[in-house]
Amino acid sequence: MKRVEALKQRAFEMKKFDGFLITNEANLLYFAGFPGAACLLIARNGENILYVYNVNYEQAKAEAEGKGFRVELVKSGENLMAKVAAQVKVFEIEKLAFDTLTVESHRSLLKVLRGKTRLTPQNTLVWELRKVKDAEELSLMQKAGELTCEGMKAAYGTLRPGLKEYEVAAEIEYAMRRKGSWGTAFETIVASGARSAFPHGGCTEREIRNGDLVVVDIGAAYQHYRSDMTRTFVAGKPSEKQKKLYEIVKKAQEKAVHAVKPLAEAKAVDAEARKVIEEAGYGEYFVHSLGHGVGLEIHEPPTLGPQSREKLAAGNVVTIEPGIYMVGFGGLRIEDTVLVKEHGAERLTGGFYTLEAAK
Amino acid sequence: MKRVEALKQRAFEMKKFDGFLITNEANLLYFAGFPGAACLLIARNGENILYVYNVNYEQAKAEAEGKGFRVELVKSGENLMAKVAAQVKVFEIEKLAFDTLTVESHRSLLKVLRGKTRLTPQNTLVWELRKVKDAEELSLMQKAGELTCEGMKAAYGTLRPGLKEYEVAAEIEYAMRRKGSWGTAFETIVASGARSAFPHGGCTEREIRNGDLVVVDIGAAYQHYRSDMTRTFVAGKPSEKQKKLYEIVKKAQEKAVHAVKPLAEAKAVDAEARKVIEEAGYGEYFVHSLGHGVGLEIHEPPTLGPQSREKLAAGNVVTIEPGIYMVGFGGLRIEDTVLVKEHGAERLTGGFYTLEAAK
Repeated sequence: MKRVEALKQRAFEMKKFDGFLITNEANLLYFAGFPGAACLLIARNGENILYVYNVNYEQAKAEAEGKGFRVELVKSGENLMAKVAAQVKVFEIEKLAFDTLTVESHRSLLKVLRGKTRLTPQNTLVWELRKVKDAEELSLMQKAGELTCEGMKAAYGTLRPGLKEYEVAAEIEYAMRRKGSWGTAFETIVASGARSAFPHGGCTEREIRNGDLVVVDIGAAYQHYRSDMTRTFVAGKPSEKQKKLYEIVKKAQEKAVHAVKPLAEAKAVDAEARKVIEEAGYGEYFVHSLGHGVGLEIHEPPTLGPQSREKLAAGNVVTIEPGIYMVGFGGLRIEDTVLVKEHGAERLTGGFYTLEAAK
Repeated sequence: MKRVEALKQRAFEMKKFDGFLITNEANLLYFAGFPGAACLLIARNGENILYVYNVNYEQAKAEAEGKGFRVELVKSGENLMAKVAAQVKVFEIEKLAFDTLTVESHRSLLKVLRGKTRLTPQNTLVWELRKVKDAEELSLMQKAGELTCEGMKAAYGTLRPGLKEYEVAAEIEYAMRRKGSWGTAFETIVASGARSAFPHGGCTEREIRNGDLVVVDIGAAYQHYRSDMTRTFVAGKPSEKQKKLYEIVKKAQEKAVHAVKPLAEAKAVDAEARKVIEEAGYGEYFVHSLGHGVGLEIHEPPTLGPQSREKLAAGNVVTIEPGIYMVGFGGLRIEDTVLVKEHGAERLTGGFYTLEAAK
C-alpha cells in the first residue's frame, strides 16, 4: 500500500487528479504485489479496486485482499472497461489519470463516461516511482544479480568449439534455475561467429567454431525482478584483434561505471563510454545506447543514451553495456547491472571479465 | 510476403483501406519474419517499409531486405510515429488501418496527419490470418509440441516428495533446451499442494510433500512458436478422491478433444468438457475457459469458452484444458495443444496421462 499511497500523493495532491487507472501488467504487479490482475482503480474518495478474472480470483483473494484492496470479480463475458467506467461514475471521479490504454479501451471508457470524466495519460508519474527501487525491491534484484552470475559461471565453464548455441544456453539456464531463479529475465542470447555482430542475435542451432566471438547476454528473474549481464568470450584462443577490441570495450565499461552517481546526467555517462570507443576509432560500431533501467521489466527508464535528458538518482538500477559490432567480423559487449548509490555505482552483477572461457 | 499479400487482399481489396500500420511485436514477426522491427507500414501504392532502430538495423538488413521490404533506419532521438506519419503523407494514404496503438502513439500520428488520413483499428483482420496456421508455422508448432513433451517426460521422471517446485522446473526446462528449444513459451508452472488450486500458481521455493497434487503447466518455444501442455501428478500415492477427480478431468478433456473439428462452435467444445465436470458435481470448480489459441503468442484467439461466438476452422491451433480447483484441497488440470484438421483434432502434445509420477 505504501506504493499506492506514494502514487496518490503525486497524482491527487500534487496534480489534482481524483482517480488513477492502472492497466499495465508490470505496474499492476508493482502496486498490487500480485500477478494476474486485469486492472486497478485507485480513487481519491473510495476504495482501491483490483479487477480480476475468475481464473485468478481465488489467488487474488489470498494474496491481495485485506492489504488495502477490494478484489472485484470480472465475470466471463463482462466488458472490463464498461465495468470500470461504471465504478468511476459511482466514485464521481472527474479527472482520471491512467498509465496506458489502447485506443480501443480508451474508446470503451469514454463511451460509458459520456464526457463527464476527463482521461489523461500519466505513465510518467508511475515511472517516477518505479525508477527508484525500494529496499524490498533491491534485495530481490540483488538475488537476481547473484543468480545471473551463476549462469555466467556456467557459460564460462561450458563454452567450447563444437557446442551448439542452444546447448550453452541450456547449461546457463539450468544453473540459474537450480540455484532458485524463477526463470529467465529475457530470451537468453548466445550469438556466435558472424551472428555476434547482431546485438539482439538470439540463440540458434549454430555450432560454435574455434576462434568465434560469442556474445552471452543473460538474465535471471527472481520473484518477478530481473537482472541483465553480458560477457563476450572467444571459443579457443583469442586473436590479437579480438583482444584489442575487448580491451577497448572493457575500458569503456569501467569509465562509464565510474561515472555513475546521483545527479549524473544519463547522457554524460553514455558519453564516457562512447568517448573511449570513438577515440579508439570504432565509434560507428557502437550502435546502441549505453544502457537502460531494469526492474520488474527488462527495459525500463531511465535510458542512458546520447539523447537522454534525465539525471540519475540513488535507487536507480541500470545496465552499463558498451559494445562494438562489426558486420562480417563479429561483435563484443560487456554489460553489468548496477545500482546507483550515494557515492557511486554498486555492481549487482560482476566477475568473468575475460575473453578466454575456461575450456 | 505471402502473408503481407493476404493482408493487403483483405484490407485493401475487400475493405477499401489504402494503408496498414503494424506495431504489435508478434504481428511484426508474423509479417516480416524478423524479430526487432519497430513497426511496418504497408501501402496500397508504395513499398512495404520496415522501421528499425539502429540496434537491430544490420540484422534487419540481413534478414528482411530484398524480401519485399524496404528497411528504414530510425535514428536515435527520432520520433517513430512522426516519421511514419510523414511517410503516410508521401504515399497519400487516406484510409489507414492499424493493428493496435496506445492512446499516445495514436495522438502523435494524428498530430502530424492533421485530419487528412483516417485511422481505424483493424486488429481482427490480422487475427483472421494468424488464427489459421500455414504449413511452415505448423511444422514449427509440431516441433514445439515435441519439445514440450520432452519437458513433461522430465517432470514425470523427476517429481517426488522433498523436491522444491523450482527444482522440478529446472529439470523440465533443461530437458527442453537440450533437445533444441528456444526457451520457454511462458513462465513454467509447478504448483504443488494447496497452491495447485490456483490455475496460474507459478513456481516457488515450496517443498513438495508426499500426497501433494502438483500441476505442471509447461511449454517450449521453437523459432518463436509456442506450445502449451499441463499434467497433474501426485507426489507419492494418489488418494481415492484425487483419483476420482482425475478421471473426471481426463474424461472432460477427451470429450472436448473429440468435439474439435472445422465449423464446430468454440462454445460447444467448451460445453462438452464443462458438462462432464458439472454432471460429476464439480461445475463451480472449473473456473476458466476450456482453452485458447496458441502460436507466436501463448494466448491467442480463438478462445474456447462459454461466451465464445467463433467457429473453429482447419489450421487453428488451440489448447483443451479442463480443470477442477478446490481451494484448500488443491487443483487438477489436463491440457494439450491440438491442431484442428479436416476430420478432427490432432494432438501436438500428448502422453503422460497418469496421476502417478515415475518415482
